[in-house]
Amino acid sequence: MKTAKTKGITSLIRPEVRKLAAYHVDETPVRIKLDAMENPYLLPANVLRDVAGAITKAPLNRYPDPSAKKLKLAIAGLWGLKPETMIMGNGSDELIQTIILAFGGPVLIPVPTFAMYEITSRALAQSVVTAPLDKAFGLDAELMVKKAKESKAKVIFLACPNNPTGNRFSDKSISKILAHSNAAVVVDEAYFSFSGKTCLPLLKSHPNLIILRTLSKIGLAGLRLGVLVASPALVEEFNKIRLPYNINSLSQAAGLAALKHKKALNQQISLLISERKKLYNALSKMPGVTAFPSQTNFILIKAEADATGIYRKLKQKGILIKNLDRPGPLKNCLRVTVGKPAENGEFLKTLSAILGAV
Amino acid sequence: MKTAKTKGITSLIRPEVRKLAAYHVDETPVRIKLDAMENPYLLPANVLRDVAGAITKAPLNRYPDPSAKKLKLAIAGLWGLKPETMIMGNGSDELIQTIILAFGGPVLIPVPTFAMYEITSRALAQSVVTAPLDKAFGLDAELMVKKAKESKAKVIFLACPNNPTGNRFSDKSISKILAHSNAAVVVDEAYFSFSGKTCLPLLKSHPNLIILRTLSKIGLAGLRLGVLVASPALVEEFNKIRLPYNINSLSQAAGLAALKHKKALNQQISLLISERKKLYNALSKMPGVTAFPSQTNFILIKAEADATGIYRKLKQKGILIKNLDRPGPLKNCLRVTVGKPAENGEFLKTLSAILGAV
Repeated sequence: MKTAKTKGITSLIRPEVRKLAAYHVDETPVRIKLDAMENPYLLPANVLRDVAGAITKAPLNRYPDPSAKKLKLAIAGLWGLKPETMIMGNGSDELIQTIILAFGGPVLIPVPTFAMYEITSRALAQSVVTAPLDKAFGLDAELMVKKAKESKAKVIFLACPNNPTGNRFSDKSISKILAHSNAAVVVDEAYFSFSGKTCLPLLKSHPNLIILRTLSKIGLAGLRLGVLVASPALVEEFNKIRLPYNINSLSQAAGLAALKHKKALNQQISLLISERKKLYNALSKMPGVTAFPSQTNFILIKAEADATGIYRKLKQKGILIKNLDRPGPLKNCLRVTVGKPAENGEFLKTLSAILGAV
Repeated sequence: MKTAKTKGITSLIRPEVRKLAAYHVDETPVRIKLDAMENPYLLPANVLRDVAGAITKAPLNRYPDPSAKKLKLAIAGLWGLKPETMIMGNGSDELIQTIILAFGGPVLIPVPTFAMYEITSRALAQSVVTAPLDKAFGLDAELMVKKAKESKAKVIFLACPNNPTGNRFSDKSISKILAHSNAAVVVDEAYFSFSGKTCLPLLKSHPNLIILRTLSKIGLAGLRLGVLVASPALVEEFNKIRLPYNINSLSQAAGLAALKHKKALNQQISLLISERKKLYNALSKMPGVTAFPSQTNFILIKAEADATGIYRKLKQKGILIKNLDRPGPLKNCLRVTVGKPAENGEFLKTLSAILGAV
């Protein structure tokens, strides 16, 4: 009787939601965590001191600033943005949700790309149209435009640089899609700090462009601070959907304090870029794997065989990377985040031993 | 040309969103803030010390625990819940959104009630059906059941105690709606700590019941921590929609540390309940206004005339309350949050002077 009643109520859940699986996060405790594009470094001691001072002063009994004004100004200063073109999100995840809620679907994405575009679209009961990347993981702009027209796509997501492939799509291909699609084109620049290149200058001439940034990859993943940049007219619409107090007081205070130390944050980024180069060079020389060039803080690698076996053996040794091995363009692919020099070294040594033993 | 293009892209926004206005938060800086049901007290010094210790240790470079396991266990301990029946939200606001996304509309609400049920439904392009409360702001269960059937409502929201009226709906009326509606019935117990009464025991026999709680009203509004309680089967569905890292690391750490001081939190609540009684008694005796009994940390008052004028005069004196004065059941109504004794005293003195001068 009770079970029947329970079935009764879940049967009221939208069918699009019922057929989904929940997003799985690998929570295996490991010695070396290179799976999630986290910055491996804590903030430098002097920055941490300022952050600690700021967060312990936040009045927790009061609601947070609904528009995170001070934090927005600090981020505007960091990246040369105008506050009236910005919305803060509880991570880019929330902003992806806001965009899909604002326009509805169909949502067009190239594949392979960041998983949350498709997961979020489906959770919001919106259809997803896909277009394969070319063999070098570049954008096939003509195909994208064609698919956008055929499907009447409302939103196109372009992760740039792309996750999990690591490359940046050409400016030409992005401009083509912007110019020839009657859709909002979201250029997700989550890895901007590691590529140094941006589509921001295109905002003036393309009102259908929306840019996403995040503080997650540059050392502040725990704060959940994503940023959306678009025309003020679009920002006004998104603000209607945004939850009024979506950024908590502690993340606002901590983000603001950390961003006063631009130089310290940039030093960590430079260090990671130089480590990425070393890691890429070592992987390029390693027999049994192909490494793809990266403009991010991770590297995509393709094993000659049994990537899933390699992933499992690394995990047994306490090293967690991301297993992408499934039929299709990512067959035998793995993704490794750039860690600290010693972590990268141990990863390379262990991988090399595993490959030698295969 | 640029303007035409801008119009072009906003015209792609869902019509339901375009016709909305953004949620307005009154950000006037004031001396005495009694508008938002905030606990007026900071955490006691020893609690603050523990919270500060916890948040300064959180590794901000890593993503937060996706399911907030430790915090959930602490809240389960506080309120006698089972972790497998719980989901944490970025405030109850996010959980309201999750529920509407899971079931879709129509959404049935009594009026007047908490504004976010209707605002969120409309932002998600779902229709809203309303049923008036009776003259004493009680629930008309028969009318609710009738409207639920007629509209085929998927979700019913019952704020209990209700905001902005302050009363708790009768258990009988809630049970009737639970038993006779083929809809998810959300009982929002945001003010549970001030009423001491709960619908939790009904969960066993009613799988369509969903309960919401929050830490916002008991002194932690800045953290944005809402809690949903429902059958594990429903929790599984909601988890598919929930953003994987929706609770940031600092709020998790701060909430966990604060909840170790249950006694200190309860002392503040007891103090506010006793202040509510004093405030209610004083307002009941004041000529020119009617005060409604409250099981929350606020009191609804109805002026004989010109409530908007009274609200403005209070604001000029540096006292911010909530103006609810508009045609309908809340004509000439105002809502005042219970503050510190001195704040309540000054509010009463100022209100009395304004009413005398009217």
